[in-house]
Amino acid sequence: MDGARLDALVVRLPENVLLLSGFWPMIGASTLVFPREGTAAIAIPQYYENEARPSLWEAEPHWYQYGVLGAPDPLESARRFLSGLAGKNGWKRIGYEGSFQMVAPSWHSGESLVPTERIKVVYETAFSGSELIDATELIQKERRTKTGYEADKLRIASEISCIGLELFQGMVDIGVSGVELVAAVEAEIMSKGIGYKGAQRVRGYAQVATGPEESSIAYRMNEISTTRKLRNGDAAMLELGVVADGYWADRTRMRVAGQPSDEQTKVFATLCAAQRASIDAIRPGVTGAEVDEAGRAVIREAGYGAAFPHITGHGLGFAYHEPSPKLAPGSTDVLEEGMLTSVEPGIYFMPAGGFRVEEDVLVTKSGAEVLGEFRKDLG
Amino acid sequence: MDGARLDALVVRLPENVLLLSGFWPMIGASTLVFPREGTAAIAIPQYYENEARPSLWEAEPHWYQYGVLGAPDPLESARRFLSGLAGKNGWKRIGYEGSFQMVAPSWHSGESLVPTERIKVVYETAFSGSELIDATELIQKERRTKTGYEADKLRIASEISCIGLELFQGMVDIGVSGVELVAAVEAEIMSKGIGYKGAQRVRGYAQVATGPEESSIAYRMNEISTTRKLRNGDAAMLELGVVADGYWADRTRMRVAGQPSDEQTKVFATLCAAQRASIDAIRPGVTGAEVDEAGRAVIREAGYGAAFPHITGHGLGFAYHEPSPKLAPGSTDVLEEGMLTSVEPGIYFMPAGGFRVEEDVLVTKSGAEVLGEFRKDLG
Repeated sequence: MDGARLDALVVRLPENVLLLSGFWPMIGASTLVFPREGTAAIAIPQYYENEARPSLWEAEPHWYQYGVLGAPDPLESARRFLSGLAGKNGWKRIGYEGSFQMVAPSWHSGESLVPTERIKVVYETAFSGSELIDATELIQKERRTKTGYEADKLRIASEISCIGLELFQGMVDIGVSGVELVAAVEAEIMSKGIGYKGAQRVRGYAQVATGPEESSIAYRMNEISTTRKLRNGDAAMLELGVVADGYWADRTRMRVAGQPSDEQTKVFATLCAAQRASIDAIRPGVTGAEVDEAGRAVIREAGYGAAFPHITGHGLGFAYHEPSPKLAPGSTDVLEEGMLTSVEPGIYFMPAGGFRVEEDVLVTKSGAEVLGEFRKDLG
Repeated sequence: MDGARLDALVVRLPENVLLLSGFWPMIGASTLVFPREGTAAIAIPQYYENEARPSLWEAEPHWYQYGVLGAPDPLESARRFLSGLAGKNGWKRIGYEGSFQMVAPSWHSGESLVPTERIKVVYETAFSGSELIDATELIQKERRTKTGYEADKLRIASEISCIGLELFQGMVDIGVSGVELVAAVEAEIMSKGIGYKGAQRVRGYAQVATGPEESSIAYRMNEISTTRKLRNGDAAMLELGVVADGYWADRTRMRVAGQPSDEQTKVFATLCAAQRASIDAIRPGVTGAEVDEAGRAVIREAGYGAAFPHITGHGLGFAYHEPSPKLAPGSTDVLEEGMLTSVEPGIYFMPAGGFRVEEDVLVTKSGAEVLGEFRKDLG
């Protein structure tokens, strides 16, 4: 904030409220003002007081009526809260969330309240004497390097993801469908994840591609799972996002139903070696391109270079995918201690199918820590 | 569009792309241009071609590279697509999604791509000779009244919700937790809902409040389910959102673990009578206030008026909650044939707990149709 000469940040996305206050809202109706100097303040729907009080670090809470008869319009409530703060402070430059295009859901992911032009008008009205600055990149940078507290929370999310990986590994079999695997993995994560090391709000987002046609395009941003039943020799790929109290894990594991072919076995061994090479390359000071190339070279040398059409990894933590660091050809992102990145090489072609393995890796002082270690085997 | 004198609409939110094209994107990376005259055009990530082709009505598809190595920046891809269209047409006024604050997720709800200032800049660049108009209210109005095709899709979503209600009704018992109920209901909806009457992408969002403390505040916008185990006489409330291929259902059912008290039995009977009274009041031409009052009067006369702190219902269909019609004290929204509204009276107090029942009701030519009829009983 010093570098950007901002006097305060105002945020509403649950992921950014968590970053700056310790409280993970259920919907984007909490407004946090985080000043460069002095104490933060946050307006929270009154009926979430019991959840908010134990988790808020230092922000002064203002409870307001939301979603009940007689409550003022929520944007009017936000305006009043912000006007009160503006009147007491001489802030000149205020940062806001102007460009968060990809947003994370709260625990209840059936709907999200996101920033639009309407809240911008509220900010302009409440902070009428101030300059509003799109602080998206500043906030993303703040999110990129994890504190020790955040790393502990991220370890819990990754450990919970292993509950889903374990169920998947045991359940893949001839006759089982992708949809059945998704439903079972998500149920297992919720029922065993909530309560694990104190986690209170946990949800899994599973996608399972089965067979050659589905798995060979399973590098898509989001996969669509189907009722197609696994046949002997079919690849099954689990792509799994897990959120635990606002902190994310992102894992992938593979199985083959029945008997893997020699080619599938070779592809899988190549992938595991490529992933190992990229993880071994991770330490402070290396670039995203160097980490990508370490693994990509292994795949290329095995003859599968053209079948790896995506990046090796991306940042994550406060969301399923974050823009940096990026492990990709040409990436000049430099790794620093505390950054978290996925490492997820893939090989996709017919008729063997698509294969990928994925870990979340924390950059340590001198190397890398794989969060939530879990075995890799094909069947 | 005629009334607003718009020459074209440009939309990216999956819910609005579905409304205007028949295709429900997996992430907000599809850009649809819907002109007042002529054929619509849509840019879609190439790797979703197999899902998009069968569902698109009339829009001309443009497939573009997204999320793979070598693909241009996605906003640059959008700019090129839109510039090409702008060059061929003399559009003067173009509507866009400026103020959709509450957004629905796609089937994979772990992340959503939402409109921000960045896409606004893309629109301004591509349509540099045109005026950009925030068309949020126009689009919301278009969504409010459902076509016959949409009503059929909404019936399927409501019928699938009954799969979850059925599991819940049978599973509530002493010793079972809210989290276990949520996990089981969501798994059941996904595994039995996908494939039901051709539904391809289905997800349930369940919340279960158990016992007096949790259920007596279960009118919150989003509820938080816990590992607390049901005791004899505890209320259990299931709030359930279901999306099936982009169309939503919103249901609530109650059970009591073990033996309901006389007061709980009376509260539940009052609620069912109140809901019946509101549903009976629904027909074209009545206001939201009249429908609300029909049920609220029943609750008030039973002595529980102060314990019903929220509105009777809200629009829905392309999202879990939509702003209109609103069934609430003072609401001047006038019901029309084809509108869909929830009807969800509630009574919340200690120590009996919170109670609510909820149906989705379609306004017909002369009355009301409850979608996905399902029994109501307490234990």
